[in-house]
Amino acid sequence: MAPTARNRLNDAMQPVITLTTDFGQTGPFVGLMKGVILRHAPTAAIVDLTHQVARFQPSEAGFWLARSYRHFPRGTVHVAVVDPGVGTPRLILAAAHEGHTFLAHDNGILPVVLPAGVVIHSLSPAWQARQGWPAPSNTFHGRDIFAPLAAAIASGRAHAQDVGPVATSVVPASIPVATRSGTRIEGCVVALDTWGNLITNIDASLLEGLTGAVVTIAGREVHLVSTYGLAAPGSLMALVNSLGVVEVAWREGSAAVELDLGRGAPVTVRGSS
Amino acid sequence: MAPTARNRLNDAMQPVITLTTDFGQTGPFVGLMKGVILRHAPTAAIVDLTHQVARFQPSEAGFWLARSYRHFPRGTVHVAVVDPGVGTPRLILAAAHEGHTFLAHDNGILPVVLPAGVVIHSLSPAWQARQGWPAPSNTFHGRDIFAPLAAAIASGRAHAQDVGPVATSVVPASIPVATRSGTRIEGCVVALDTWGNLITNIDASLLEGLTGAVVTIAGREVHLVSTYGLAAPGSLMALVNSLGVVEVAWREGSAAVELDLGRGAPVTVRGSS
Amino acid sequence: MAPTARNRLNDAMQPVITLTTDFGQTGPFVGLMKGVILRHAPTAAIVDLTHQVARFQPSEAGFWLARSYRHFPRGTVHVAVVDPGVGTPRLILAAAHEGHTFLAHDNGILPVVLPAGVVIHSLSPAWQARQGWPAPSNTFHGRDIFAPLAAAIASGRAHAQDVGPVATSVVPASIPVATRSGTRIEGCVVALDTWGNLITNIDASLLEGLTGAVVTIAGREVHLVSTYGLAAPGSLMALVNSLGVVEVAWREGSAAVELDLGRGAPVTVRGSS
Repeated sequence: MAPTARNRLNDAMQPVITLTTDFGQTGPFVGLMKGVILRHAPTAAIVDLTHQVARFQPSEAGFWLARSYRHFPRGTVHVAVVDPGVGTPRLILAAAHEGHTFLAHDNGILPVVLPAGVVIHSLSPAWQARQGWPAPSNTFHGRDIFAPLAAAIASGRAHAQDVGPVATSVVPASIPVATRSGTRIEGCVVALDTWGNLITNIDASLLEGLTGAVVTIAGREVHLVSTYGLAAPGSLMALVNSLGVVEVAWREGSAAVELDLGRGAPVTVRGSS
Repeated sequence: MAPTARNRLNDAMQPVITLTTDFGQTGPFVGLMKGVILRHAPTAAIVDLTHQVARFQPSEAGFWLARSYRHFPRGTVHVAVVDPGVGTPRLILAAAHEGHTFLAHDNGILPVVLPAGVVIHSLSPAWQARQGWPAPSNTFHGRDIFAPLAAAIASGRAHAQDVGPVATSVVPASIPVATRSGTRIEGCVVALDTWGNLITNIDASLLEGLTGAVVTIAGREVHLVSTYGLAAPGSLMALVNSLGVVEVAWREGSAAVELDLGRGAPVTVRGSS
Repeated sequence: MAPTARNRLNDAMQPVITLTTDFGQTGPFVGLMKGVILRHAPTAAIVDLTHQVARFQPSEAGFWLARSYRHFPRGTVHVAVVDPGVGTPRLILAAAHEGHTFLAHDNGILPVVLPAGVVIHSLSPAWQARQGWPAPSNTFHGRDIFAPLAAAIASGRAHAQDVGPVATSVVPASIPVATRSGTRIEGCVVALDTWGNLITNIDASLLEGLTGAVVTIAGREVHLVSTYGLAAPGSLMALVNSLGVVEVAWREGSAAVELDLGRGAPVTVRGSS
C-alpha cells in the first residue's frame, strides 16, 4: 500500500479499544491483554475504562459501559471481561451499535448496554479457528480471544456480523431496571464511585414531567437538586449525575459509609406531575 | 493537507496530555476523559500522573505537577482536576509556561505550579460556546470541558492565551510555603508516596550553603543524608529526594506508619552556614 | 528522511515498552517514567504490566515478566524496577532474548526471566555519559536511567549488547525453583492475584507424564483439575492457570484468605507416572 493511501486509512480509522474488567491492578492480566492487542493492532490506543468492577458482577461492567461509550470516538471497540463462568463453556458475543462495537461473554453484560433489537452475534469456533491465533487457555479469554478479536475489529479487518451466527437467545440484562408508575419511580443502587457516591439505575428520562422530586433511601427523604454545590457540607443530597442517572451523595463525605449502603439498596423517587 | 506536510506536523507536535485527579481507579471517570480527548486529538498520548490525589486536596495535585512537568516533552498539556467546588460556579484557568500548558480550576492549583508573574487566562464562556462541544454537565468538567480543551491545545488548535481574558486575581496557592530564616527552615509534609515516605515542601534550594543539616520531625532529630542506602534498615532518615525536596523516610518501612504522621506535619531543618 | 522511508520504519518498528514496578498508584512516579520515555521515543506505546509488585520483591517482578513477555510484540522492551537497594551502588543490566529486551537492576530479576546462557550486559558509565541525559538522581533510576535507556532501545537507537560489557557474574534468580523428584514436585507460592488465587512456581512442564496429580497445600489435598468451572463454589481447587503454572484457588472466594496463606507457602504435587 502506498504511504498516501496508508495515511488516509490511518486518518480515517485510528483504532481505539476500551477495557472493562474485574482484574484489579495486581498482576499482569490487564497488561497481557494490551500486549496481545498491540501484536494485532500496533497503533491501537487502549483505554482502561475500569478494572475495579466488583468481582463477578457483570451488571456493573454493563452499567459503566452503557453510560460511557458514547463519549468515545466512533469505531471504538469496547471489551468487557467480567466472567463468573471462567473455565466453563460460554459464548462470546459481539454487537455493533451507533458506530461502536461491544464484546463480552454471554453473561448479561451486552443487554445492559444495548437497546432491545440490536443484533448480537456469537463468535463461532470455525471463524475463530481461521484466525490463526494460538490455542486459547481455558481460563483467560481476555488475553486469548477478546484481545485479538478486538484488535481485528478495531483495525477494520473484521466486523461484529462476520464473527459468527446471530445469537437468537442471550442471557438477559443482569441489572434491575428502574420502573415508573405514575409519579413514583422504583430503582436501586447499581454502582459506587471512589468517593462512596451511590449511583442508581434511575435514568434522568424517567423523571420527565415530574416536579418537586423527592428521593427516598434508607428511610431518609431528600429533594433532588441540580448540583453538589447546593447542599450543605455533611448533608445528604440527591442529583442527576454526569452519567445521566440519579445519584445519592453525601456532600464532602461518603454516602455509602454514612448510610451503610451498597449495591442493590432500593431507591424511590416521587414527585408531582 | 498533503501527507508530507501532515507528517512534518506530526513529527513536530506529538500531542501529549497528562491527567492528575482524585478520581481513584473505581468507575469510568478517568477513562471518559480519555475517550473525549481521543475524539478531539486521535493521536494523543495520554499519561496518568496520578488519580490518587487525596480527595479535595488541590494542593497535592499542584505539588505533584510542579515536581513533574519538566520531565515531559515540551508541548505537553497538563490537566489537574481536583475539585472541591463540584457544581458551583468556578473558573477554569489556563497558563503556558516553559513550553508546557497547565489547565485547572481556579482553586489554588496553578499558583503551586507556576512562579509568580506567569500570565494565567480564564476560559471565557464565549470562547467555549464557539467550540461546538456538547453542553457541559454541572458536575463533570473533566470530561466535558478539560478534555476537549486539552485536546485542542495539545493539537495546536488553541493556545492558553486564546481561551479567554487574563485572570487578574486567582485563588492563591493552596499549599504552605517553606521558609528559611538564617540557618533554620520551617516546612511541612505535603504528600505521601506508596511506601509511606513523608514528602515535604522544603526545596533543595533552601538548603544552599547549609552544612550539617539536621531534620526535626515529631520530636525526633535525624541528619540529612544523601541517599536511602546510607541508613540502617529500620531507622529514620531524611534526604533530598528525586523530586528535589526534603523527604523523611523509614529505611525498609513506612515513616507515615512509624511516626503516625501525615499531610501537614511540621518539619524543621537546621544547620550551620 | 523522506516520508516514505519514515513510514516504512514506523511500520517495521512501533516501539513498545512495558513497565513493572512496586511504585503503586500513589504519586507521579510511574507517570514520570512515561514522560521521560515520550521525550526520547515520542511514538512509544507504554504498557503497565503491574505497579503492585510486593515492595522490594524483585522475585515477583521477575515472575510476572517471565510469564508475560511472550505475549507482547517482538521488539518490546521490558523494564522492571523493584529496587531494595535504592541509593546504593548497583548495576543496571540489559539482555536481549527471543526478540525482546529486558532491563533491570542486578538484583535477581533477570535470571528469573531468562534461561541460563543468555548473555547479560551491564550498563557502563562511559556509554551512559555519552547519551547526554541529565545527571541521574541517586534515588530514581526508573526515571533517570531506565526510561531513556528503554526509549533508546525500543526506538532502535541502541541494543542491549551496546550499552556495556558482558556481566560475567550477576545476582542469581531471586525466586525458589520448583523441583521434581520422581513423581513428587516441591514448589511454593510465588505470587497472588487480585482475587487471592495462590500462584506457584510449578511449571506445567514439570507435570509431564504424571497422572492423577494431587496438590497438597496447608495440610489439605486436592486433585488438579483442568479449569475453575469443574469445582463446586466454595471449594478448594488446583489447576494449571493461564500463565502455565499450578495455581491454588477457592472457587468464588479467596484461597489466600480461606487458607490464610501467602507468598512462600510450600506446595507439593504428587502423582503416578
